[in-house]
Amino acid sequence: MAKATANAIVAQSGGPTSVINSSVCGVIQEAKRSKKIGRVLAAHDGIMGVLKEELFDGTAEKAATIEALKRTPAAAMGSCRYKLKSLDQAKSDFERVLDVFKAHEIRYFFYAGGNDSMDTADKVNKLAAQQGYELVCIGIPKTIDNDLAYTDHCPGFGSVAKYVATCAMEAGKDNEALSTFDMCSIVEVMGRNAGWIAAASGLAAREPQDAPHLIYMPEAAFSFEKLISDVKEVYKEFGRVFIIVGEGLKDKNGNYITAESTGFGKDSFGHLQLGGVADMLKVVIEKEAGIKARWNKLGTQQRSAMHFASLTDVNEAYMCGKEAVRAALSGVNGKMITLVREQGEKYKCTTGLAELKDVANGEKKVPKEYINEKGNHITEACRKYIGPLIKNEAPITIGKDGLPVYVRLEKKWVDKKLPKYL
Amino acid sequence: MAKATANAIVAQSGGPTSVINSSVCGVIQEAKRSKKIGRVLAAHDGIMGVLKEELFDGTAEKAATIEALKRTPAAAMGSCRYKLKSLDQAKSDFERVLDVFKAHEIRYFFYAGGNDSMDTADKVNKLAAQQGYELVCIGIPKTIDNDLAYTDHCPGFGSVAKYVATCAMEAGKDNEALSTFDMCSIVEVMGRNAGWIAAASGLAAREPQDAPHLIYMPEAAFSFEKLISDVKEVYKEFGRVFIIVGEGLKDKNGNYITAESTGFGKDSFGHLQLGGVADMLKVVIEKEAGIKARWNKLGTQQRSAMHFASLTDVNEAYMCGKEAVRAALSGVNGKMITLVREQGEKYKCTTGLAELKDVANGEKKVPKEYINEKGNHITEACRKYIGPLIKNEAPITIGKDGLPVYVRLEKKWVDKKLPKYL
Repeated sequence: MAKATANAIVAQSGGPTSVINSSVCGVIQEAKRSKKIGRVLAAHDGIMGVLKEELFDGTAEKAATIEALKRTPAAAMGSCRYKLKSLDQAKSDFERVLDVFKAHEIRYFFYAGGNDSMDTADKVNKLAAQQGYELVCIGIPKTIDNDLAYTDHCPGFGSVAKYVATCAMEAGKDNEALSTFDMCSIVEVMGRNAGWIAAASGLAAREPQDAPHLIYMPEAAFSFEKLISDVKEVYKEFGRVFIIVGEGLKDKNGNYITAESTGFGKDSFGHLQLGGVADMLKVVIEKEAGIKARWNKLGTQQRSAMHFASLTDVNEAYMCGKEAVRAALSGVNGKMITLVREQGEKYKCTTGLAELKDVANGEKKVPKEYINEKGNHITEACRKYIGPLIKNEAPITIGKDGLPVYVRLEKKWVDKKLPKYL
Repeated sequence: MAKATANAIVAQSGGPTSVINSSVCGVIQEAKRSKKIGRVLAAHDGIMGVLKEELFDGTAEKAATIEALKRTPAAAMGSCRYKLKSLDQAKSDFERVLDVFKAHEIRYFFYAGGNDSMDTADKVNKLAAQQGYELVCIGIPKTIDNDLAYTDHCPGFGSVAKYVATCAMEAGKDNEALSTFDMCSIVEVMGRNAGWIAAASGLAAREPQDAPHLIYMPEAAFSFEKLISDVKEVYKEFGRVFIIVGEGLKDKNGNYITAESTGFGKDSFGHLQLGGVADMLKVVIEKEAGIKARWNKLGTQQRSAMHFASLTDVNEAYMCGKEAVRAALSGVNGKMITLVREQGEKYKCTTGLAELKDVANGEKKVPKEYINEKGNHITEACRKYIGPLIKNEAPITIGKDGLPVYVRLEKKWVDKKLPKYL
C-alpha cells in the first residue's frame, strides 16, 4: 500500500480525444478529496515528460480550470507517441521513469491511453515491485478507435461516433441536394485496423435512402470490383452514393489495399496513396463506374470535435478517472479501469477492472455480427451497441465572440531533481 | 405588376449551404401570408427542375416541415450547377424557362444563388419583358464564399465561418496536444477565388499562440519559399504550426499555384494536385522545413454543418427570403435582396436592393486591409467585419438517438403540361 502524503502522477498518451481531459479532471478532483494523496503532478507531453522530468503541478491549477477540462478537447497536459526503450540504451527508459517517480515521491501512477500505454504502466509496475519501491499503477482507457479488449467500449469513442454520424448526415444532405453534379461523396474517417468509427457513421442512416449508403471497414474484405458493383447498385436505386471509408482497407487476405495491390495498374493509380484512401476510391469510382465523386477527410477534427461531443462519453471518461483514484486508494494495483455495460433494456454503465497486461495484449475489432452480409454496412446489433454511447450533448462554454472557450493549463513547473536524460 | 392569384416559383442554385433552406422557408411562409400569390412551386434540383418541368408544390408541404427548413442544411428542393444554354440549341433554355412559367401561371420567380443565378434571373426577366409576359424576378443571395458584390455579406457565410473557426480551434488543440509527433497541421477549406472562409478561421486565434498561426488566401501572393520561411518562424516560436489554406492559392502574377509552377521539380511534386492543396503543402513542408505534417480537408462538411451554424446567419437568410416576397409584392423587379450593415457600434443588419445584372457582373474578394502585411493572417478590421456574423448558435432538433433531425420535403409533384425538353 502506498504511503500517506505520497504524490501521484497523471499522464496522457497517444492521439487526443474530446474527452481524455475529462478523465484527467476526474483523477485530479478525486485525488484532491483524499488525504492519502499529496500533489498530483502532470507529465508534460505524456511519458516524455516523465523521462525529461518535465512535470507541473496539477493540484495547483485553478479549480475552475480543472473543471473546464470536461469541456476542453485534446490533451491539455500534452501527449506523445514515444515508445519506451529498454534494450538499446545503457539505462532503460523504464528505470528512468522509476527514478523520476522516486525523486518526486510518486506512489500513484495514473496513465490514460491505449494498449501500448497499458503495457508501459504494467512494465513500470513490475520494475517497481522488483526494486521494492511501493507504487500503484492504474490504467485509464482512452482511444477513439474503441479497440481495447476487456472493456465494453472506450472513452473517446462515443464522441467521435456522434460527430462522425452527424457529419455523415450533414454531408449526406449536401450530396442529396447536389446529386445532379456530385453523384458520389466519400468521407474518410480514422481507424486503420479497427472499423469502429466507420461503423458508427451507420447510425446516421435511419432509413435506406439516408447517408451513408456504403460503409467500408478494415474488418470486411475489400475489393475494387465489389466497390464498383456496390456503387452502381446504390446509384441505380437512389441516384446518388454516399460512402464512409475507414483509413485502413484490407483485402480478403488481410493485406492493406493500395492501388498496386489491385488489378488496377500502377500507371493509373500508382500514386494514389498520397491523398489517402478516399482519394483512391474517388479516382477508381470515376473511372470504373463513370460517376463523378468528391471526398472529405475529417482528420484530426473528428477526435477533437468537442462542440458536438457525447455527454455520455464525457461522463464516462470522468468516471474512469475518478474510479482510477478510488481503486488505487482501495488497494488495487496493476489494473485498468474498464467500462461495464449492465444487463437490461435501459443503458447503464458502471466500471470494472482488467489486468494491464491483458489489455496490453488484446485488441477488439468490429465483430462479424455487426457487419452486414454484403460487408458494406452495419447490422441492427451494431446499432444497439453503439447507439447509447452517443446520447446527449456535452455542454461547452461559448464566448461572446460566438466561438467555444477551451482552457489551457497554467503549468506551474516542478523543479527538476535529476540529471538530464533525454 | 403581377396578376392576383398568380403562382410563384422558388429555386435553389449551386453549392448548398447550412441556411439556404431558411431563405426558402422565408419565401414560402411570407408568400402564404399574401393573397396575391397562389401556390409557391418548388423547382426540383434548381433551374434543371424548371427546364424539365419537374416542379412540386411548396405550399402543400406541412407547415411544420417548412418551419423545420430553418434547422435543415443543404438544399431541400435540390440544386444543380447547370449553366443555361442560349446559342447551341434550337430553342434556348431561357425560352424554355419562360414557357414553363407560362404553363404554370408563374408570375414571381425567386432565385437563391450566386452571380450566375443572378445573371440567369436577369436574362429570364428581360426575355419576359420582351415577350410582354408579366413576371417579377427577385434574387436571394446565397454563397458560403461571401463573394457577391453590393451586399455587406452573404447568407451561408456566417455559418461556414463559425464552423471553420471552431474546427481551427479544435484541431488546433489537437495539434498543440501532440506537437511532439505531428508538428504541423494543415486544414484545407473551400474558396477557390475568394479567401473569405480561410479568413474566418482567423477568429479562432484569440491570442498569438492559438491556431491558426498561418492563413493562406488566394488574395495574398503565395510562394513556397515564403511558406517555408513562415513555417520555420512559427515553429521556432511555438513548437508547432497550424495552417489554414484556401483551396485556391495564387502566385504574385495571379496564377494558380501547382507543384509544376514552382521551383520545386515535377519529380518531387508532379502529382501533388491529386490530394489537393493541403496535401501539396504537407509534402513541401516535410521536405523543405523538415517538420512532420498532417492535414484535414473539411470538404462539403463545412457548408452543411448545421449542428453548429450561426443563428445570425439563419435569421438573415430567412429575412432575405421573406423580403424577396415583400419586395416582389410591392412592385420591385429585377433586383437581388442585399444585406445592409447599419452604422454604429452594435451590429444591426437590414436589407436593401441591388440590380441583378450588377450583382451578376461583380465579385467581392478579401480586401487588402483585411490581410496582414506578411500576407499570412487577418487584421483587426477583418475580425470586426466577420465577428458579428458568427454570433449565437442556430437551434437544431436532436432526436432520441442523439443525432440531429433534418427534414425531407414530401414533394407533391405538379402535373407536367409541356412536352419533354431535357
